Amino acid sequence: MPSVIVAGASGYTGALAARLLHRHPHFDLVAVTSRSDAGRRLDDLYPYHRVPLALEELDLDRHGQVDAAIVAYPHGAAAPVVAALRERGVKVVDLSADFRLRDVHEYERWYVPHPHPDLIEDAVYGLPERYREAVRGAGLVANPGCYPTATLLALAPLAGHLADVVVDAKSGVSGAGRKATDTTHFVSADENVTPYGVGHHRHMPEIDQELHAAGAPRHLRVTFTPHLLPLDQGELVSCYVTLSDPLGHDVTEVFRRAYAHEPFVEVVDRAPGVRDVRDTNVCRIAAHMDERTGKVFVFAAIDNLWKGASSQAVQNLNLMFDLDETAGLGV
Amino acid sequence: MPSVIVAGASGYTGALAARLLHRHPHFDLVAVTSRSDAGRRLDDLYPYHRVPLALEELDLDRHGQVDAAIVAYPHGAAAPVVAALRERGVKVVDLSADFRLRDVHEYERWYVPHPHPDLIEDAVYGLPERYREAVRGAGLVANPGCYPTATLLALAPLAGHLADVVVDAKSGVSGAGRKATDTTHFVSADENVTPYGVGHHRHMPEIDQELHAAGAPRHLRVTFTPHLLPLDQGELVSCYVTLSDPLGHDVTEVFRRAYAHEPFVEVVDRAPGVRDVRDTNVCRIAAHMDERTGKVFVFAAIDNLWKGASSQAVQNLNLMFDLDETAGLGV
Amino acid sequence: MPSVIVAGASGYTGALAARLLHRHPHFDLVAVTSRSDAGRRLDDLYPYHRVPLALEELDLDRHGQVDAAIVAYPHGAAAPVVAALRERGVKVVDLSADFRLRDVHEYERWYVPHPHPDLIEDAVYGLPERYREAVRGAGLVANPGCYPTATLLALAPLAGHLADVVVDAKSGVSGAGRKATDTTHFVSADENVTPYGVGHHRHMPEIDQELHAAGAPRHLRVTFTPHLLPLDQGELVSCYVTLSDPLGHDVTEVFRRAYAHEPFVEVVDRAPGVRDVRDTNVCRIAAHMDERTGKVFVFAAIDNLWKGASSQAVQNLNLMFDLDETAGLGV
Amino acid sequence: MPSVIVAGASGYTGALAARLLHRHPHFDLVAVTSRSDAGRRLDDLYPYHRVPLALEELDLDRHGQVDAAIVAYPHGAAAPVVAALRERGVKVVDLSADFRLRDVHEYERWYVPHPHPDLIEDAVYGLPERYREAVRGAGLVANPGCYPTATLLALAPLAGHLADVVVDAKSGVSGAGRKATDTTHFVSADENVTPYGVGHHRHMPEIDQELHAAGAPRHLRVTFTPHLLPLDQGELVSCYVTLSDPLGHDVTEVFRRAYAHEPFVEVVDRAPGVRDVRDTNVCRIAAHMDERTGKVFVFAAIDNLWKGASSQAVQNLNLMFDLDETAGLGV
Repeated sequence: MPSVIVAGASGYTGALAARLLHRHPHFDLVAVTSRSDAGRRLDDLYPYHRVPLALEELDLDRHGQVDAAIVAYPHGAAAPVVAALRERGVKVVDLSADFRLRDVHEYERWYVPHPHPDLIEDAVYGLPERYREAVRGAGLVANPGCYPTATLLALAPLAGHLADVVVDAKSGVSGAGRKATDTTHFVSADENVTPYGVGHHRHMPEIDQELHAAGAPRHLRVTFTPHLLPLDQGELVSCYVTLSDPLGHDVTEVFRRAYAHEPFVEVVDRAPGVRDVRDTNVCRIAAHMDERTGKVFVFAAIDNLWKGASSQAVQNLNLMFDLDETAGLGV
Repeated sequence: MPSVIVAGASGYTGALAARLLHRHPHFDLVAVTSRSDAGRRLDDLYPYHRVPLALEELDLDRHGQVDAAIVAYPHGAAAPVVAALRERGVKVVDLSADFRLRDVHEYERWYVPHPHPDLIEDAVYGLPERYREAVRGAGLVANPGCYPTATLLALAPLAGHLADVVVDAKSGVSGAGRKATDTTHFVSADENVTPYGVGHHRHMPEIDQELHAAGAPRHLRVTFTPHLLPLDQGELVSCYVTLSDPLGHDVTEVFRRAYAHEPFVEVVDRAPGVRDVRDTNVCRIAAHMDERTGKVFVFAAIDNLWKGASSQAVQNLNLMFDLDETAGLGV
Repeated sequence: MPSVIVAGASGYTGALAARLLHRHPHFDLVAVTSRSDAGRRLDDLYPYHRVPLALEELDLDRHGQVDAAIVAYPHGAAAPVVAALRERGVKVVDLSADFRLRDVHEYERWYVPHPHPDLIEDAVYGLPERYREAVRGAGLVANPGCYPTATLLALAPLAGHLADVVVDAKSGVSGAGRKATDTTHFVSADENVTPYGVGHHRHMPEIDQELHAAGAPRHLRVTFTPHLLPLDQGELVSCYVTLSDPLGHDVTEVFRRAYAHEPFVEVVDRAPGVRDVRDTNVCRIAAHMDERTGKVFVFAAIDNLWKGASSQAVQNLNLMFDLDETAGLGV
Repeated sequence: MPSVIVAGASGYTGALAARLLHRHPHFDLVAVTSRSDAGRRLDDLYPYHRVPLALEELDLDRHGQVDAAIVAYPHGAAAPVVAALRERGVKVVDLSADFRLRDVHEYERWYVPHPHPDLIEDAVYGLPERYREAVRGAGLVANPGCYPTATLLALAPLAGHLADVVVDAKSGVSGAGRKATDTTHFVSADENVTPYGVGHHRHMPEIDQELHAAGAPRHLRVTFTPHLLPLDQGELVSCYVTLSDPLGHDVTEVFRRAYAHEPFVEVVDRAPGVRDVRDTNVCRIAAHMDERTGKVFVFAAIDNLWKGASSQAVQNLNLMFDLDETAGLGV
């Protein structure tokens, strides 16, 4: 049974990854680490995850012996840890943005100077529905951002037909992370809905990169605006697509075919709510051809902490170790 | 002091109208009526409104003596009541959709056979920021829908420049009305967000009609999709505009000029949240010229029960009786 | 593998029971029935449960062939179905109140005329932490109410020392059931907290009966008041105990000993929140000896739909079939 | 028109006090001060309060010239500011706990060393329903805590009959203040309910002091436990009273008489919800004589930021300046 650690397990996504691996039938979770909370028990920080382990300082001599790691560090801080683990032969799924963008200049325009540009080439973009085979052979997987996960699953089947795309995204507050801020204060978020990152959200280049890879025209720039909603987990992307040419098929049929064999994508007739996918690795999608405007609407719902982060990381780990892709993901 | 009734005061918007009129310095609220709850006290149904009146059956002989009425009946049921009140010389603000659409065929396509098409011509569309002078002289005002109110305030200043418009709208559950349904059940709405009315929401023709009146090209059909959010009051419209030609000015400046003298429109730099306007007649708007995509984004927040319905009705009544437009509206 | 049905699977607790049994390693869920929703798919009604079965009308000829049933019918309607299934030799866990009270007169005082008083004697009260051995041998288990479950786990270890008890209980809205009512309307429950059933809640005689069985003095009548909170799942009971005599031990130690071998009771130092036990069969308890008042405070948190209903029913089924008590309960 | 400042207007209660005074017909709000946010506009921090003033550093030379001040500083920090303002003849309502407890030793046991014990004697406890006449003549009013406000209004009419009292209190998150912490993080509070301050909440001595003053037996120590609820504003106290002797009257009648002339206390038959009093200075109370246990239950709902803090402060100011007690309080 491969041994695995979660590095950075005190944040929301790291902690959830630890929970999933602790219950996983084919991995042995041997340690959880944290810089800020070393010494505390994970089941004290997150009682509902019920992971009976104490958080440790990351110790590469010891932790570098494992077979695999999920790294849940902030952007910029992740790359050095990933590099050190890779040097020791550890297979890594990285939850940060550090290895998602193929173009280091683009990365540095949106984030920080890249600490390990040499590793970018080796990284596989971990959206299994697009890169399943590459993930199987990968040593380093860059787990997609939550918004790109939902948006790409919603738009990739239409990639060759996209003339213009508006994505209006909605996310629960857990997407803003565990840090207590004015934004995450209950009184700020409750009974409220607010657009944020207007015109400059970091997930935009990631979405564009992968839509281009899927066949969208090079000049396409997706319009993307996220909104903060008063709920804890859940993310909905509402995509309004102007087609460059007719699809030739019923739009729902296009999606049904595209995802016919996907264990974690559900194509449905009625627009999904985020509650439909809460606490699952499922992305639920409905498409609608709008006769009145000629546009195609696509709605995709995920749990931002699950398919948008931690359970997708486990799905990737399953593939990297040639396990059943659905193992430990509870469906 | 003009006397006024609220007909249909047991629903959310009628009850709020009663509250505003009960505290209004220049109107005398003499009766509140209800078909379903006659006999009950309004402050029993809605303690927080503190209107110490009992609901009565509508009695035109008696209630037709007043100077003014706010009618809060369902679509189709409103028109006959409005007609009866108008016959008796009562000035009416109608909260239903019955007199909003100029084209009776369009009305009947989206709603029901129209009971009083003859009155349509006399009705003024009650968005004071667009039709203030007409409202002043009106005997019958069709109070706009909540989504049209926010959407039109967001888009009217750009009407001559609209090539394509996507409106993604978000509303709290009070917008679905007082009726207990699967949709309004707490467990359905809580921790959820769901698109609804996809491709066929009744507010679309109203938005198109008024954008055309404001100068938008005849062929423009707005893409409009509402979403149900887990909050009680509040509505945000996120508008993504493809321009037909350059604005010639900074977009925020366009809005500041358009609304420089409006008492209830706030143009701000940072995208608004619905909490900013809760329990007020204010529409708060921010516009953003997006260099990356060339689109203009406009975000407008209102309280769906206030500016989206009842307080806007009072604003209209103020105008119809030549009162200070802001009287009784608490700012 | 024993076959099992859920009769009455369209309500919250029946649907959750179906989910748990559908994924259970040692039961074969062969049918789900519903009177009101026969013909609909359960995964259409409750997408998040992901049970790919259609709801059927209950057909005793067919459904009476199974090994076990969980019955989730309303009070009074459950007893005849339970009787019919028992006649055919089916082992039953009944989620209604029909077989919880030993005294048929007491039942009829709080509920309705009892349709099958003859079966009361055979029923075992399904709180495994109190009646584990009896449940193992039972053909009919009366699953406890949600409030009694939490309250009894909180108070039973102190039963011999109780002079007076005040229980202030708080529950999420799912406890009020799936029916859309004024009470369960989002706008009623949101941003609100309300006491209900003041002085006459039906769970009171059940709590008294079982506290007496646990050794509380016969004259003890627990003061019990539930409150409705703006959350979907979760229940907290706050118990304020006047002792009749000293405990002789640290109060937390009393609880640790009482529950040392219980797989689903967690005794902790810090007062629990309901989020700690969401979507689990766990009851989390903290006790505090208050020097200032001489009272003992006990706080117990459960998920009202899980340990308060459906997962406890599965725990009981596990025992009735001599399986691992924790099978299929995900901890 | 008396001039007034709010010192410490960047917290929730100070900001709300500023809003109420800015719209008050008989006070002139001349300045709002803040240590942490000087320079920012109050309508930028709290758009929904719509107070068009910039926050300033407190400058006693200038701000000491006003007629009145509401001070909303933290405990311990308030007393020196209050003292400085009083020296300059300014009438002060202090929202902190610094002058609530008559016994400086008791204060120092629960809070910090008292910076100005000499002023305690001059301070009037600002619960108008108990100390109206004293407030009228006061130069310094200690505004009650939110929990004591609701609890004392619930229990004072029974003070002479109290043998034992359990108070289970529930509050929205705004009661925890504006500071972003793990506790006030949306993801911590949402879908949760948690007891806190178990056995040692600072409002206990304040409640005891005032119940004794109202005639409760000296040895009475109220059992008091607050709970954090997932809502922004609102507070409910559920009081379970063991009587020392019969009331001699119907309990609701006792409350109706006690509060017959109170403009801000509503005695009702059905247990109140906090939504009934949101954004008002009202305390809504229902009492129930429980035949089964012999106890009296009293439920009192307030808005913790309004009657529990800022609007009660304005009510006190009204009295101190011999104005209509309800002026500016919107009922």
